[in-house]
Amino acid sequence: MKQFFYPSTLAVFGVSLNPRNLAKTIIRNCLEMGFEGKIYPVGNKPGTIYGKKIITDTAKLPEGIDLAVILVPSHLVAQTVEACGFKGIRHVIVSSAGYREYKETDNQEEKDLINVAKHHRIRFIGPNCVGTINTGSGLCTPFNPINTRNFIKGSISLVAQSGGIANQAAHYFSDEYIGFSKIISTGNKLDVDELDLIEYLIEDEDTKQIHLYLESIDNGKEFIRLAKRSPKPIILFKSNVGPTASKVAKSHTAALANNDRVIEGAMKQAGVPRVRSLHEMVICAKALRLPPLKGNRLVAISLSGGFSVILGDACESYGFVCPELPSKLIQEIERYRRGGVIRMSNPMDFGDIHSFDILLKSVKQCLSLDNIDGLSLSFMYGPEMAKMIGSEISSPKELLELFRSISNELDKPIGLSFFTEKRHLEQLKAANSFPVFDNPMESIQALSLLRDYTTRHKSQSV
Amino acid sequence: MKQFFYPSTLAVFGVSLNPRNLAKTIIRNCLEMGFEGKIYPVGNKPGTIYGKKIITDTAKLPEGIDLAVILVPSHLVAQTVEACGFKGIRHVIVSSAGYREYKETDNQEEKDLINVAKHHRIRFIGPNCVGTINTGSGLCTPFNPINTRNFIKGSISLVAQSGGIANQAAHYFSDEYIGFSKIISTGNKLDVDELDLIEYLIEDEDTKQIHLYLESIDNGKEFIRLAKRSPKPIILFKSNVGPTASKVAKSHTAALANNDRVIEGAMKQAGVPRVRSLHEMVICAKALRLPPLKGNRLVAISLSGGFSVILGDACESYGFVCPELPSKLIQEIERYRRGGVIRMSNPMDFGDIHSFDILLKSVKQCLSLDNIDGLSLSFMYGPEMAKMIGSEISSPKELLELFRSISNELDKPIGLSFFTEKRHLEQLKAANSFPVFDNPMESIQALSLLRDYTTRHKSQSV
Repeated sequence: MKQFFYPSTLAVFGVSLNPRNLAKTIIRNCLEMGFEGKIYPVGNKPGTIYGKKIITDTAKLPEGIDLAVILVPSHLVAQTVEACGFKGIRHVIVSSAGYREYKETDNQEEKDLINVAKHHRIRFIGPNCVGTINTGSGLCTPFNPINTRNFIKGSISLVAQSGGIANQAAHYFSDEYIGFSKIISTGNKLDVDELDLIEYLIEDEDTKQIHLYLESIDNGKEFIRLAKRSPKPIILFKSNVGPTASKVAKSHTAALANNDRVIEGAMKQAGVPRVRSLHEMVICAKALRLPPLKGNRLVAISLSGGFSVILGDACESYGFVCPELPSKLIQEIERYRRGGVIRMSNPMDFGDIHSFDILLKSVKQCLSLDNIDGLSLSFMYGPEMAKMIGSEISSPKELLELFRSISNELDKPIGLSFFTEKRHLEQLKAANSFPVFDNPMESIQALSLLRDYTTRHKSQSV
Repeated sequence: MKQFFYPSTLAVFGVSLNPRNLAKTIIRNCLEMGFEGKIYPVGNKPGTIYGKKIITDTAKLPEGIDLAVILVPSHLVAQTVEACGFKGIRHVIVSSAGYREYKETDNQEEKDLINVAKHHRIRFIGPNCVGTINTGSGLCTPFNPINTRNFIKGSISLVAQSGGIANQAAHYFSDEYIGFSKIISTGNKLDVDELDLIEYLIEDEDTKQIHLYLESIDNGKEFIRLAKRSPKPIILFKSNVGPTASKVAKSHTAALANNDRVIEGAMKQAGVPRVRSLHEMVICAKALRLPPLKGNRLVAISLSGGFSVILGDACESYGFVCPELPSKLIQEIERYRRGGVIRMSNPMDFGDIHSFDILLKSVKQCLSLDNIDGLSLSFMYGPEMAKMIGSEISSPKELLELFRSISNELDKPIGLSFFTEKRHLEQLKAANSFPVFDNPMESIQALSLLRDYTTRHKSQSV
């Protein structure tokens, strides 16, 4: 499987100089992303593309190329795969569409593809997909032009049964400062499916979390088995839930609808957090960077009374409780009030204590309590804070580092959000040394995903 | 009430030269925001602040100042209000905290404040609030330093029972390109409450939508009566839903918890959309700029198969249906497919039609159908699109204008979202000539809020 991600030689079939040709964009994307392997464009007509000669006779390809990407009309795919077989190519991405997602009955082309691949012991991803993006090797096989410059290298990998979602995730993860390692679009999954890819990603050193966007799950039992034994979190965004979506899903990736209640129950059993959007996927990815959340007892603190009320509501709606704090601790914190006008409780309105040191100290004291599993802090940032805390903290990175060290030291999570201007929030997210959520509600949602993973995933305690 | 928003003279009580003095920031904020009225700082010690002499003897204040903001210790508030009364001031914002939100029993200070105000026929906002921000006059009474430079003038007004929420909303609305007119923080509502403010805002020419953040509703009957007869949409973010939040809400704004089920039912009856976060408030504000959504029959189109599946799920979870489209229309659209590889349905995967003109035409044809009430389009934007549609469209503004004109002409809403890089999405949002939602899910959520308002609010049809 590794050759789907780290090929040292790559052949791209279907390239032409036609301005509307899609296959040549695959080469462009790889070059822009810094792919250092050798690339062979293959097409019907001779020419030179990105400084590389288009090969018109496949016999002239060198032996044993690691990976081929095929984007030719569907009726030519089988013979192209065959040509790959003859040249010793064992890994192929079939990007071409026009298979079962389109034709209900006549699937000779599909059968031919499967048979030819089997015969030559070729593993293939697709058809009807955009293949793989790997920040580790610069491989970038989507056939639409992609701005790879903003991609952030990291440890999240995603398997997506939709090319559009795969592309958008690559941008969205990066825009949200979620570094990624590998993004794979699987299309119709006629050979390689999510199970193969999960197995690979479990072993892959660069991957710490495995995210999935699926429109169908074909082998639920095996999926559950894999998920249960996976030492890495597996996160599922399963769409195609009801009959409305299934009308289009069938023609999109030939996906058959699953019984959603069965899926919901099975995922709970297997400790697979389920998300409902790319946005929630990002929230979950951030949450799972935090220490485990072993229970549902939180302290919720905000420097704004309003947000502490909102935090309280959020805690309840995600099944958390906010235990009473020891009166000794309450009294100690109350001593530092400036106006003496706000009473302390949990959730806690910290608006009357204008000292960052006392805030940090209180966060630590609260999180240390035996009957507290985690903490959510809705903090502010910007000129106000700078004024309040003086010059002790010079950067967003340094600020986040302080929360990170408390959280790590006590091995309990802090769900951190800020109320501030967008530009300040961006700076904090970009610092990226500790997860920052968009608002208090999301910080609690994040903690709930983390709790569900921690408490439901059995292999955690192994 | 108008003098709370458009005073031509303003007195600020509690000003000193102490670097930690909060009252002087009120003057700073007004000046930065371009307030053109006359400002009188009042304090105990003489001095000059922002070029204005601090008045130490209230007798020396001119007669008939329009508005006073008071930020002095709570035990001095009543006598300060009395001084205002003697000088003919009839509108006061009491920013000081330390009343019923803090002391459960001894409320002599509160009684004194109410009595003095009554005696002098003074209307006051607060106590325990940050007052008003008005982009129309430059009045900006919060006592924390605010960056008013990014504020966008517009037609949304917000009444918030939390200073922190009021401040954050001012930034957040602006960061999301939601122009606002007035933001009012009401605090403990000892005199002026949300009902007074709703009544005023219903008449206010600059306000088109009235948003509320409330931790308690004291006079539900009157609220419902007002909401029902309001020709402008009223949108409610009601927090303090359960016992966890109520622990802190009580000490925040002295808010007593309401039975949330009663509120939920009453708001449905009154046609008041209910939102659960500032983010959802923004979604709702955008949605209500669209033409009315008179039913629940949508066409859902995406240029990505994956997002068309996600749109289908979103439609179902928000109670929409996607009716079959006439076969003649389907056939006509299918003629324009490039690869001929995607079948057309509703939801519709438009990924195989590489023509913006055909997309626009199809959107118009679908939205014109008698059995269709609205449409959601998940579009892309960026270099790809520019390439696809040639040079016909020169800017995000021009692009949005095309959708705006279709939507207005047919008097049906289009819920528009984009899958693209964040920087492109920002450009589109900034163009601001037609609502742009963050993702397909949110566009459907937006349409559901719009539908609920359109179908439930009776005065719409009057």
